[in-house]
Amino acid sequence: MDLASAVKNNEVVDGHSTRGWELVQALPGKLRTNVSEFPGKIKKLGQGDPRRIVHSFKVGLAITLVSLFYYFDPLYVGFGSSAIWAVLTVVVVFEFSVGATLGKGLNRGLATFLAGTLGFGAHHLATLPGEKVQPILLGLFVFFLATTVSFIRFFPRMKARYDYGLVIFILTFCLISVSGYRDEEVLEMAHKRVSTILIGGFTALSVCIFICPVWAGEDLHNLAANNIEKLANFLEGFGDEYFKKSGDRESNKASLQGYKSILNSKQTEESLANFARWEPRHGQFKFRHPWKQYLKIGSLTRQCAYRVEALNGYLNSDVQAPPEIHGKIQEACIKMSSESGKALQEIASAIRKMTPPSSDCPYIRKSKNTANSLKSLLKTGWCKDIDLLETVAVATIASLLLDVLSSIEKISESIHELASLAHFNSVEPDVANGKPRLNQQGQVQSSSNSVDLPHHRVITIE
Amino acid sequence: MDLASAVKNNEVVDGHSTRGWELVQALPGKLRTNVSEFPGKIKKLGQGDPRRIVHSFKVGLAITLVSLFYYFDPLYVGFGSSAIWAVLTVVVVFEFSVGATLGKGLNRGLATFLAGTLGFGAHHLATLPGEKVQPILLGLFVFFLATTVSFIRFFPRMKARYDYGLVIFILTFCLISVSGYRDEEVLEMAHKRVSTILIGGFTALSVCIFICPVWAGEDLHNLAANNIEKLANFLEGFGDEYFKKSGDRESNKASLQGYKSILNSKQTEESLANFARWEPRHGQFKFRHPWKQYLKIGSLTRQCAYRVEALNGYLNSDVQAPPEIHGKIQEACIKMSSESGKALQEIASAIRKMTPPSSDCPYIRKSKNTANSLKSLLKTGWCKDIDLLETVAVATIASLLLDVLSSIEKISESIHELASLAHFNSVEPDVANGKPRLNQQGQVQSSSNSVDLPHHRVITIE
Repeated sequence: MDLASAVKNNEVVDGHSTRGWELVQALPGKLRTNVSEFPGKIKKLGQGDPRRIVHSFKVGLAITLVSLFYYFDPLYVGFGSSAIWAVLTVVVVFEFSVGATLGKGLNRGLATFLAGTLGFGAHHLATLPGEKVQPILLGLFVFFLATTVSFIRFFPRMKARYDYGLVIFILTFCLISVSGYRDEEVLEMAHKRVSTILIGGFTALSVCIFICPVWAGEDLHNLAANNIEKLANFLEGFGDEYFKKSGDRESNKASLQGYKSILNSKQTEESLANFARWEPRHGQFKFRHPWKQYLKIGSLTRQCAYRVEALNGYLNSDVQAPPEIHGKIQEACIKMSSESGKALQEIASAIRKMTPPSSDCPYIRKSKNTANSLKSLLKTGWCKDIDLLETVAVATIASLLLDVLSSIEKISESIHELASLAHFNSVEPDVANGKPRLNQQGQVQSSSNSVDLPHHRVITIE
Repeated sequence: MDLASAVKNNEVVDGHSTRGWELVQALPGKLRTNVSEFPGKIKKLGQGDPRRIVHSFKVGLAITLVSLFYYFDPLYVGFGSSAIWAVLTVVVVFEFSVGATLGKGLNRGLATFLAGTLGFGAHHLATLPGEKVQPILLGLFVFFLATTVSFIRFFPRMKARYDYGLVIFILTFCLISVSGYRDEEVLEMAHKRVSTILIGGFTALSVCIFICPVWAGEDLHNLAANNIEKLANFLEGFGDEYFKKSGDRESNKASLQGYKSILNSKQTEESLANFARWEPRHGQFKFRHPWKQYLKIGSLTRQCAYRVEALNGYLNSDVQAPPEIHGKIQEACIKMSSESGKALQEIASAIRKMTPPSSDCPYIRKSKNTANSLKSLLKTGWCKDIDLLETVAVATIASLLLDVLSSIEKISESIHELASLAHFNSVEPDVANGKPRLNQQGQVQSSSNSVDLPHHRVITIE
């Protein structure tokens, strides 16, 4: 399609005929490459997330069901063009995750109902003054409503949650208010429309929820854990990779690059959080699970990832510190890096298991101790004719690792808040303290963060 | 709406009645706050980008035009429900930028045409074997097509450019193939549908293009320049801010934070580039302007922003280097930072003016010289009982500034490539060399980057 449009477009532009001809000559080759690569791409896409294949079959099933329902329905001939609204609803509303489908369905349903009522009122109002004024009044109504609602779509909060509903609102209002029908006809049409939309909406929702559902909330939860794990993998490998330079370096380096995807994860997280808020309780997630907290966790994870990105730059740099400096700082850096990694692994696994992370993580403690000894090591008199430039690399790495550590503490804190807000249950009784821990441990442990919780909640629901 | 749904939802969940009651009590207060804040928000939104207000009026105008056209059209009663497709097309297709509107319109038009043809064929084919087999065949067709196209929507390249077209393709195919009409009726319906969609599409496009058009390409171009300028502002202010600590620090610091938006600009850039590719030539942008190059520039700008983010961390840190170290490195760092900033300002202004940046930027040269002297300064024997920890901060800043400089060189290179690909014209003749420069200077200057340009282009068009 790209090439075809490129070729077509080329005719429009003058002075590019040579390039156009080369384009045409390149076409069969490009086409062949595309066709031969296609099965591989399909396989890769399916393996990347097998739920995509299931989703495609679900869409096929829902559309076939509703199409055939209308095909066999004895009312069909009478319903006529209204029946298409059921098919249209399924096609437009069916999304990958339950939250997105529910959000679109509710938006569509509510907007159609509200705009229908308002449109009916406007239609009725415009008929009162007489036939001459009617079109002017109708035009004014439509113009005013379309302009206002179009502007409202720019509000970030409206855009995130109700964008689709606002479009449908304009659409339905125009259709109803401008329709040339009499009031009774409008009501009859509305009745047909609503019933077909309900049938379409319920078909889409049922197939989406009851056949291998994909929950946006679960995806968001796993994304948080995955991203923290990616950072952990980098940190666990970084110390050895930088200081020891052992093994197949290129492949080692490549295996550490998983964290890169975190840098641009903001929009994915935001849309998942928006979808998740439409979802009913599922699995371990209660209704009104604190999805917003995941955005906070995500933002702290990205902060940490920016620092990791800076660390990563040193894996490729050529500046090497002299061995005597390496020797002194090396051990501390390797230890800090790997202990930080382990701390993150523990946090990630706590998220996965939905248990509150231990408030006194041994890895963070060890990492902090190492940080302190690293600091005092750096403070020790360095009476040598040292080359600062060569020292800078190692010193910067040490400093970045200290930053990473403080990032990790912030992440850990935000997970504690999550555990408290979402009432994560501790699964392992801690007998070491001589008494079993409280069940809703998270809430108790980080109570300093959650004063006035219900009130706080009222504020954060937006 | 949020609170209303929160309250409604609350009834569904058991055991949250207390919280629900508090929610209800908080409702009037929250409502009052929202209402009182509303005018301020509208003003802010409108001032942030006045084109939003214009856009809202344009939407209102287009919808009113097409609604009234159908209201007055003598064919309207005959057209009946087909007329709504014109309104529907305007509402759904009208987007903020010309590129997005054109993309959606072309997607819709092409998909409707293709799917209509295919659906008509399927409908005809299914009637051949007899009435009993027909619904089975139709069901199979619909299932197969909906499943396949739903899967194709997952391909990133298809998703980016043809997502809307694919949805419309499924929709139209189902509507046509499952319709209970006879072949002649289908043809008549198709004729009506196509004509109304064309009327709606042309109305939307005309209003979008001829009344204060918003070009996605221009926005992308300006975004690139703006982002580079934001980095420049940070770098120009950073040296003074960190080393001199003068003036009202908090407000100074706040004024440097503009670059933060760059960190998450990837998706905005990608969608603008996708829209821009649908746009015809406008202003200084020729058809087939190398929009993809902007993504490369954007990614390099983000790389630089990650480093700036690391630098920014030091503005808030408490660790202060001892004055004797400050004194030595300070001057070099301040100079490097401000010269880097000036270099970026020059690059940004070259983008804005669409002239090739000078191949030998004096600021980059000065910055490089300072970098060299900084390096030799760091190499000089530091035989003192220095505290490495305190030195680390300053040393890290120096090292980060060196990284920033190499980032800037890459950005500059990518702008040269852009100038060459887009044939930027030099506006100032360079008489210092004794002869005027070639007009299409960019192409000549960076010819090393653009060997086999036409061929290269064929490869990059995707």
